[in-house]
Amino acid sequence: MNILVTGGAGFIGSHLTLRLLKEGHAVTVWDNLHTGRLKNLTAHRDFDKFQFVEADVREARDYQGDMIINLACPASPVHYQADPVFTWETSVFGVHHLAHLAEKIGAVLLHASTSEVYGDPDVHPQSESYWGNVNTIGIRSCYDEGKRAAETLLHDFRTFKNTDTRLFRIFNTYGPQMLPDDGRVVSNFCVQAARGQELTIFGDGKQTRSFCYVEDLVDGIWRLANLPREKVPPVVNLGNPGEFTMLELAELVFKLMGSEPKLKFLPLPQDDPKRRKPNIELAKEVLGWEPVISLQEGLKPTLEYFKNV
Amino acid sequence: MNILVTGGAGFIGSHLTLRLLKEGHAVTVWDNLHTGRLKNLTAHRDFDKFQFVEADVREARDYQGDMIINLACPASPVHYQADPVFTWETSVFGVHHLAHLAEKIGAVLLHASTSEVYGDPDVHPQSESYWGNVNTIGIRSCYDEGKRAAETLLHDFRTFKNTDTRLFRIFNTYGPQMLPDDGRVVSNFCVQAARGQELTIFGDGKQTRSFCYVEDLVDGIWRLANLPREKVPPVVNLGNPGEFTMLELAELVFKLMGSEPKLKFLPLPQDDPKRRKPNIELAKEVLGWEPVISLQEGLKPTLEYFKNV
Repeated sequence: MNILVTGGAGFIGSHLTLRLLKEGHAVTVWDNLHTGRLKNLTAHRDFDKFQFVEADVREARDYQGDMIINLACPASPVHYQADPVFTWETSVFGVHHLAHLAEKIGAVLLHASTSEVYGDPDVHPQSESYWGNVNTIGIRSCYDEGKRAAETLLHDFRTFKNTDTRLFRIFNTYGPQMLPDDGRVVSNFCVQAARGQELTIFGDGKQTRSFCYVEDLVDGIWRLANLPREKVPPVVNLGNPGEFTMLELAELVFKLMGSEPKLKFLPLPQDDPKRRKPNIELAKEVLGWEPVISLQEGLKPTLEYFKNV
Repeated sequence: MNILVTGGAGFIGSHLTLRLLKEGHAVTVWDNLHTGRLKNLTAHRDFDKFQFVEADVREARDYQGDMIINLACPASPVHYQADPVFTWETSVFGVHHLAHLAEKIGAVLLHASTSEVYGDPDVHPQSESYWGNVNTIGIRSCYDEGKRAAETLLHDFRTFKNTDTRLFRIFNTYGPQMLPDDGRVVSNFCVQAARGQELTIFGDGKQTRSFCYVEDLVDGIWRLANLPREKVPPVVNLGNPGEFTMLELAELVFKLMGSEPKLKFLPLPQDDPKRRKPNIELAKEVLGWEPVISLQEGLKPTLEYFKNV
């Protein structure tokens, strides 16, 4: 297949692209290098069928191929809040251009939605049928509402324009190639641990997150891409349902580093979700997928990566 | 002032535009006549300072003036569901173009959001701080999520680009100039009553709505337009908190018609909110506004209008 990966120079995009190349597909990456980095694509250049184009999904652009996978959007709060209008435009215009492109060329369009569409959930764990608890006018809204509006448009393309759009909601994912300054808890902890610093805990550290290793996530996306069209559900959660408090994660990082625990507590930021955990029954059923890499296993290569950035 | 009203040929837009003209302002209406109608603007043509332009907010367009009031979007489920992608584009692109226009020319931008951002609420009545319960991939999503994303963009323009954007959430509104085929309960009941037909009740008729007469709403919008900038809240509900079941509304229509009650029951459509009622404490406090026209009073001219369409 000829596959376009938008945002392919980013953390998840670069892992996914490498997997597609290894599977023997021709892959074109569009990335504006806003949060993506060319060095994430180093191993990719060994493949003949790899092409990189510096391009921004906010602008319409032509492509010919069989499949589009849209991962283009700043995804960590520190990055998506830096320029909220840019984030909103990337999410909303990006998906609009790609939907029309997919319709025109008859390509399958996979789109990365996010557990952020559930906001600060009042139902646990979150299944796909939960509608979410999201602030439209808060500091996270540019991302959350941009992604919600993107889901809506793609669902309507699927329903009314007969375009093969496929939506997956990514929960917290970690692994090598994360940006050290992305402000997420795994990168924060790993960077701080690698530098021998105190780990920063926001709030009391009892809020939980579930952490999916990036290779597990990529496998889920690829299974969704290969599903016969008639079996594709309207949207599917991809994440690891293992639930850890920030304090438990910190403990694990210290254990792997073989160092003494040192913690620093700071106030919880506005609209920070206190708990989020995927229900992945649907993914198990339709994709035959569930994560297989434990947090301890996945943290090892992640910590190694962060020691060298 | 020179004021642009987008969607000014629609139900609410035509009432608002007439009020602005009567206040002595120069008003330009942009409307693509998708659900707006030129005959709604008949009285307006008596004013020298009135101008109509057939224009679609999905396309960027220039304007010079002091204030923009954005009412451009199909607003009734039957209309907004007819072409969901068109609805999404109107809401999302419309607000994007107008936000950039307002920023460029230094105009105040008022934007009609909607009680639909609360979805099928699990909190009653709804105050502005309630985040809503909205399906991203249902039949109402093109409107609900389009409007939610619009709120987000305008709030970020207010916060990060120092543009004077003002958001109000309109609850159910009724009055002359409603489209007879808009599928809303007031127009349905009035049309059916005027034709001597049975009134259609969806579900058991015990779901409630609050109904605001259009002149009350217009007064609230105009007060928000005239508020000193530093007093403008992030978003304000405009609606009538009086709560009526569909059965009570039907009874009132029969009473005003002086005819015998005849009802027909049909199943409730997908995602239909069972109850919605505004909390308007904020509007009372900052705008000194509350509706003054009772449902019985407002229904009289409305029924008269529907007898003649």
